[in-house]
Amino acid sequence: MGSPSLLVPTAPVSLAADPGLSARVTQLRSSAIRDLLALTTSGEVLSLAGGIPPTELLPADAIAAATARVLAGDPAAVQYGPTEGFEPLRTWIAHHEVGDAASPVLVTNGSQQALGLVVEALIDPGAIIVTETPSYLGALQIFSGTGAQVVGAPTDRDGLDPAGIEALIAGGLRPRVCYLAPTFQNPTGSVMSVERRLALIDLAERHGFVIIDDDPYRELGFEAPPPRFAHLRPSDAVVSLGSFSKSLAPGLRVGWVAPPAWLWGPLVRLKQAADLHTNALSQRVVADLVARPGWLDGHTAGLRAVLAPRAGALVDALRDTFGERISVDEPRGGMFVWATWSHLPTTTEALLPRAIEHGVAFVPGATFDPPTAPGRSGDSRRSARLCFATLPPDSLVEAVARLDAVITSNE
Amino acid sequence: MGSPSLLVPTAPVSLAADPGLSARVTQLRSSAIRDLLALTTSGEVLSLAGGIPPTELLPADAIAAATARVLAGDPAAVQYGPTEGFEPLRTWIAHHEVGDAASPVLVTNGSQQALGLVVEALIDPGAIIVTETPSYLGALQIFSGTGAQVVGAPTDRDGLDPAGIEALIAGGLRPRVCYLAPTFQNPTGSVMSVERRLALIDLAERHGFVIIDDDPYRELGFEAPPPRFAHLRPSDAVVSLGSFSKSLAPGLRVGWVAPPAWLWGPLVRLKQAADLHTNALSQRVVADLVARPGWLDGHTAGLRAVLAPRAGALVDALRDTFGERISVDEPRGGMFVWATWSHLPTTTEALLPRAIEHGVAFVPGATFDPPTAPGRSGDSRRSARLCFATLPPDSLVEAVARLDAVITSNE
Repeated sequence: MGSPSLLVPTAPVSLAADPGLSARVTQLRSSAIRDLLALTTSGEVLSLAGGIPPTELLPADAIAAATARVLAGDPAAVQYGPTEGFEPLRTWIAHHEVGDAASPVLVTNGSQQALGLVVEALIDPGAIIVTETPSYLGALQIFSGTGAQVVGAPTDRDGLDPAGIEALIAGGLRPRVCYLAPTFQNPTGSVMSVERRLALIDLAERHGFVIIDDDPYRELGFEAPPPRFAHLRPSDAVVSLGSFSKSLAPGLRVGWVAPPAWLWGPLVRLKQAADLHTNALSQRVVADLVARPGWLDGHTAGLRAVLAPRAGALVDALRDTFGERISVDEPRGGMFVWATWSHLPTTTEALLPRAIEHGVAFVPGATFDPPTAPGRSGDSRRSARLCFATLPPDSLVEAVARLDAVITSNE
Repeated sequence: MGSPSLLVPTAPVSLAADPGLSARVTQLRSSAIRDLLALTTSGEVLSLAGGIPPTELLPADAIAAATARVLAGDPAAVQYGPTEGFEPLRTWIAHHEVGDAASPVLVTNGSQQALGLVVEALIDPGAIIVTETPSYLGALQIFSGTGAQVVGAPTDRDGLDPAGIEALIAGGLRPRVCYLAPTFQNPTGSVMSVERRLALIDLAERHGFVIIDDDPYRELGFEAPPPRFAHLRPSDAVVSLGSFSKSLAPGLRVGWVAPPAWLWGPLVRLKQAADLHTNALSQRVVADLVARPGWLDGHTAGLRAVLAPRAGALVDALRDTFGERISVDEPRGGMFVWATWSHLPTTTEALLPRAIEHGVAFVPGATFDPPTAPGRSGDSRRSARLCFATLPPDSLVEAVARLDAVITSNE
């Protein structure tokens, strides 16, 4: 394999030899996706690897206008602010996203930080985290630094299967947390059904674990998504995470967490220690934009109108090219499709360096495997996560042609 | 005492009873300063408690103009960016702040996050952190969540005394880290001499500990500050932290860390797991402003021209009012003076609730004490940190009159 360091850095091994570093940082995995991002800037490579919204659709003008409005005559917009976040934004999120205007909301630097804080508050070494198989790479990276045992539960097109978790519990597993991305999941695009969502809440309450509902893609649905867990049934076992990175702009780093009341104080204290508060100006800019009647709906409708045909173009090209040799679900929203080849000359991980030489990049399926996954099929080694959001349809078609060339040349 | 929860929340005690929370969050102290910030917004209270730059001097118009320039025709300014930070800003910091254009610089959400990441990379439970007596509250808060032993070393008007650390080492102490704010320190305003800086680097290299040089106030000097540690002598034992919160605007949350090469990979990986990257738009705005010839120097000169007479007004009022009953050093820069009364009817901590009733707030000296401080004098219980940056001179004079009323009425 040509450039393994691009994918799974071996740093933890070499770091462990340095007695000057903490146990946490020597455990922590680097993120393959972030390392791959470097590739996407080269221009030579058609990258299906990132999870990057279309740059040309980012609302730069609207953000510039909102910034001008927010700063006009109010230098307090760039002063220190409260750790909890900018009050009007917190209220908007509680009302529009959590469905309960009284819900406590903590604004964070994207939902990545929200997840990190929740994990810091709940997880000690040895604790058990259940997640989807496959799962979000940024979450697996956070988990890798905790000393927790991460267990992948059975997952299909309808998302995580609570019956699978129940079977694990019957077998003696005692989860502290169940982390999942139930809506247009990263990496598979799966959508968890309402029935399963309700069953999971029931299971969490009966067995005393916490559900972390990470739902950043729900504005990018080509069909209406099921309600958030918190909408379906208020529960002390549910933590909701959200983000404006996908619906508005990633570079503003504005996300949020709505925890149950018992978790509120600890999360605020962790956020305070972490960085005092989230960027005050960006919070006000987001609050300004979402308060404008119809603006956010119009913007996300425009996004969906671009993303849906891209998803279609990618899936059509994959099916036209690989026919019965590939399995790929109809995209329902989000940014990703999960493709599994029935036969490959080698693993997708081993294919990647050659794919990059052929001018196409993706993330190998096995990258998303939780460390422990009872009953895992091994399909992930023949799978890849392909992002349809970043490139226009003709580039997606060309990327698939390059994929075909790589695979054919290896057969 | 009227409202003890405003100062030192008792939450850790009650949290420890909840088996659902991690060890880390049950150890973590809340920050008295952040809780006190709530007071500063009431308008009734003249607050000397915060560490807040004058809102009216925050460059709102310049930031709005820079945002417009940065976003004009470039939506990539609000796209995902590299974990390390925006390249032109990193290069500017390396050249102008670290004094070595080739130095690796990681951009963070203020220097609070930079310190948190460095501590995460270096400190395991049981490790020993040496710091100033008194020390920065936000650092003490971070340390409180680590399980480290925090030891306060002797500190005077010339900052931390390396001879004191050497004595501790001779007594068997094995520090992993020495954290300090050597320039216009928070809370005392002390400035560490060049001789002591060089001696501390020497000590760190001989005894294998790491110096964390936290230097956010150096642009706010009424006299030229000594060079940063990294300027004085390049050393693998020195980590430099800096911030644009004091020199530009706190709400942008743009700070940085320049680590030695061996610490670079671990820090980037921790930052990636923490929140992917710092706000991309704010990084570009800061880069735009600092690249404009003379702009930053002109802006900070304007700040100093306002802060110096405020510092003078506060110290004059304290000396006029309390005479020989108070000890307060001539301010040399930064935002704070440290006042110690020779006699008080009670501790400054016990005085605070009554002071707030009298319309004045401060931070009691003992709040800044490291948990362990060999040879501590006990003066801190008769001391207070007073911020001169936020209020105009006449309000500072009035605040001192209210302080006098509180103390007199308690005698």
